[in-house]
Amino acid sequence: MGNIKLSEISTRAPKEFDKSATKEKSAAIIKELDDLQNLLYAEGKHSILVVIQGMDASGKDGVIRNVMGNMNPQGVNVKSYKAPTPEELAHDFLWRIHHYAPQKGMIQIFNRSHYEDILITRVHKWCDDETARKRMNAINDFEQLLINHNNTHILKFYLHVSPEEQQERLTERLSDPAKMWKYNEKDFEEAKLWDIYMEMYEDCFNNCNNPEWTIVPADQNWYKEYTIASKLSDLLKSLDMKFPGLKK
Amino acid sequence: MGNIKLSEISTRAPKEFDKSATKEKSAAIIKELDDLQNLLYAEGKHSILVVIQGMDASGKDGVIRNVMGNMNPQGVNVKSYKAPTPEELAHDFLWRIHHYAPQKGMIQIFNRSHYEDILITRVHKWCDDETARKRMNAINDFEQLLINHNNTHILKFYLHVSPEEQQERLTERLSDPAKMWKYNEKDFEEAKLWDIYMEMYEDCFNNCNNPEWTIVPADQNWYKEYTIASKLSDLLKSLDMKFPGLKK
Repeated sequence: MGNIKLSEISTRAPKEFDKSATKEKSAAIIKELDDLQNLLYAEGKHSILVVIQGMDASGKDGVIRNVMGNMNPQGVNVKSYKAPTPEELAHDFLWRIHHYAPQKGMIQIFNRSHYEDILITRVHKWCDDETARKRMNAINDFEQLLINHNNTHILKFYLHVSPEEQQERLTERLSDPAKMWKYNEKDFEEAKLWDIYMEMYEDCFNNCNNPEWTIVPADQNWYKEYTIASKLSDLLKSLDMKFPGLKK
Repeated sequence: MGNIKLSEISTRAPKEFDKSATKEKSAAIIKELDDLQNLLYAEGKHSILVVIQGMDASGKDGVIRNVMGNMNPQGVNVKSYKAPTPEELAHDFLWRIHHYAPQKGMIQIFNRSHYEDILITRVHKWCDDETARKRMNAINDFEQLLINHNNTHILKFYLHVSPEEQQERLTERLSDPAKMWKYNEKDFEEAKLWDIYMEMYEDCFNNCNNPEWTIVPADQNWYKEYTIASKLSDLLKSLDMKFPGLKK
């Protein structure tokens, strides 16, 4: 049990970070990620699961494109979870998740995830508190399964934007021809549920925090991308990977 | 924790069971199973998982053919687990299992299962005791996931044959043209490991017994089939199923 209060965490970069210096650092890290991922794939001992959650327009797609997009796609899969299909709903809520758990050597990105089953579902009261508690326990067990039984390292990121920044980005989708395809009038309806979403996110962080969530200040894309690239790079470097020798 | 001792459980039918009377009863139950399965499918509320384990030649294929073979194949899936593929081995051991977890309305049969990961693997020392303990915990969590989150009812059967009966059946495969396709010279090598297999099975039953295993005396096919058909029928009847009305 943690005690994360989102209202006490800034959605902006700490003052000591300079935008252009940080962008340069990110570029260097992202370049390195390509080699690190290649080694991960060659060695085939570890697997990586990156869970990305956040409100609409918090920048999930952008992170995947800008931070993950430089690695070899053969070793990186992205699964974007939408509303469950009838087939998926006819199974337990982790069934469709487990199917995309990463093989050894692979990096799997989840754009939204099993966490929606204790977030949007609770906000709309499709899932009561008792069921949510059971799901949290099941999620914790499931993540331990991946960790203990397939050497999976899980990074969980919450893209923390302010409601003002979200409104600005959603409105931009109405006028920017390159972003109009993302426009969905329902997003404005969802945005009205901000406070209850924050409450459910906090409950989720406080009950499913092993491995820990990273709350990523996300009002500025450059800082958000730096944070996520660094975390992934630090993890890969910590694995003490080696190229395997000739197979016998 | 249970305390099942296989050597204290008979591999033969209790004396009060008459072969031809029991066969008649089985035929009636198996006929009824067809209607019960149809109702299960129509209602779409429950799912059934039947796990069948047993030594080579204990009669797993026969049960599936004779007891399950009368139901509508659209509502009954059989998955036979063999040695894992490289793709499967690159995941946690429950990944390939979860994929075949039954949808609501379905009966899923596992011919061998996740239990092999704490049976043959331990016998051959591919899995040490500490890993086996962790796997047992993961199996227990996994079965609870299916039970709690998809209304899955799990029946676990161990087909309990004597080593003498097994030898007879394996030898028969050498001479019966209809059974030769099942012959595998390695089965005789495995049979030599009988005592250690029994020890690992007992450890499995005693640590993964929620839901409970049914130890099925299996030297006589007629009694084995009666036991399994009855258990499945009793379960389906206990579900208080109803045909759903018109969809609104």
